[in-house]
Amino acid sequence: MAKDMREADLKEMTPEEFRNMVRNGKWTEWTGMACRGYAQANLAIVPKENALDFLTFCVRNPRPCPVVEVTDPGNPHPALMAPGADLRTDLPKYRVFKGGELVDEPTDISKYWRDDFVAFLLGCSLSFDWVLREADVKFRLLGAYSTNLPTIPAGIFHGPTVVTCRLVKGDRDAVRAIQLSSRHLFAHGAPIHIGDPKTIGINDLYKPDMAHGDSPNILPQTADEIALYWACGVTPQTVAMAAKSSLMITHFPGCMFVTDKLCSELVVL
Amino acid sequence: MAKDMREADLKEMTPEEFRNMVRNGKWTEWTGMACRGYAQANLAIVPKENALDFLTFCVRNPRPCPVVEVTDPGNPHPALMAPGADLRTDLPKYRVFKGGELVDEPTDISKYWRDDFVAFLLGCSLSFDWVLREADVKFRLLGAYSTNLPTIPAGIFHGPTVVTCRLVKGDRDAVRAIQLSSRHLFAHGAPIHIGDPKTIGINDLYKPDMAHGDSPNILPQTADEIALYWACGVTPQTVAMAAKSSLMITHFPGCMFVTDKLCSELVVL
Repeated sequence: MAKDMREADLKEMTPEEFRNMVRNGKWTEWTGMACRGYAQANLAIVPKENALDFLTFCVRNPRPCPVVEVTDPGNPHPALMAPGADLRTDLPKYRVFKGGELVDEPTDISKYWRDDFVAFLLGCSLSFDWVLREADVKFRLLGAYSTNLPTIPAGIFHGPTVVTCRLVKGDRDAVRAIQLSSRHLFAHGAPIHIGDPKTIGINDLYKPDMAHGDSPNILPQTADEIALYWACGVTPQTVAMAAKSSLMITHFPGCMFVTDKLCSELVVL
Repeated sequence: MAKDMREADLKEMTPEEFRNMVRNGKWTEWTGMACRGYAQANLAIVPKENALDFLTFCVRNPRPCPVVEVTDPGNPHPALMAPGADLRTDLPKYRVFKGGELVDEPTDISKYWRDDFVAFLLGCSLSFDWVLREADVKFRLLGAYSTNLPTIPAGIFHGPTVVTCRLVKGDRDAVRAIQLSSRHLFAHGAPIHIGDPKTIGINDLYKPDMAHGDSPNILPQTADEIALYWACGVTPQTVAMAAKSSLMITHFPGCMFVTDKLCSELVVL
């Protein structure tokens, strides 16, 4: 049923309507076009014993990991970003990592939930895509890539930064994309790289490590397109793998938590 | 000796020179005029058992508690903000709270230091005072006040927000003060209140709860002065008292940690 939903319908849903659809198992896919103007968030859940390390990691690496909410241990309801939501059911798809291995990709994590779980919502660049679209910035989102840019470690957590790449049409729109994203510090802020993918360890721009939406067939970069790279909230997943932490649950890439906050409410300046 | 130092000498010192002077016990006072252009920071130290609660508190209350660094447990050296510094000796004066009571105000906390201590450096509005001065914004810093504005609690930590008040001369400079401080998100960002002190629970603007520098004799507000109130990094101290936490060590109000980072390096946008 949800597969037949038109893009226009998704866009016009409220976050609560969209989350209800997700909770009822009727949407298990990319959230990129859902709920126009509302901030989306990455999810990372760790046991309390790792929570200080993880939160310290986020604070040390605010570009990939801008913290918009930390829940109290055992509480799956994000009181600040969406009080009525349930982080166990309201994301289309999850990833479960044990000892650094991906062991499950469920659409509901109720059976995994524990009283000592602390959930982190991290801002997401899909949020400011709305801002770019509304400002009529012309761009193509290619996907997410691992890079050779290290994060600053904290406790058990360490690993490379993951980025998303957008090709922006023309100098003027590229500058505006930088200006606009800079204001959205809680959606990864400004780009961390411009131009050549190879200098940050991306060998093939046309083969993202994680494809986004309809990116499997990427058309070649044109002469007037500028490649901008933003830090990505998938970083904690590569970090969870590197840390071989006992347990971490995250969103499935691209399948985000849709908050009740407008992007414009979270803007800086 | 240091008492005889001229304001101009303090301004021109490097952070390392200033911290060495402090470390050697030759400066135990207000840091407001030290090291022109360099970011200063509030300090809060808690045992690891309270560190997740405290860091969560900071993340939930970014205006009073903008985290610029979290140290690893037991490590008194802030690797990001000033690698050569020692947080046990390099602040002019400290406060030690036990069970919510202020029990000591030493100029060195080496004897209190423990292997399970986690130190937090929080941005400080004395940093952006440099920015305001360099932009020729005319203002008077009155001092710090407790308010009736609640913080968002986290674990054992809760309590009212503390603010600093500045009287800014004229509408134009007031708007510029707001614009400039907004960019310094790591120095408390934009004001959280404008105008009447009574609406945020300050009964007497001329009797700050904590005086700053030469503020004991405050001249009355003039008709063209606008009162702007910024969240203040003294908030964790009132919170430590309210929480009756077993142990918290902070800076003495106004006696900050001077970092190696220029305010302009920490600017947003």
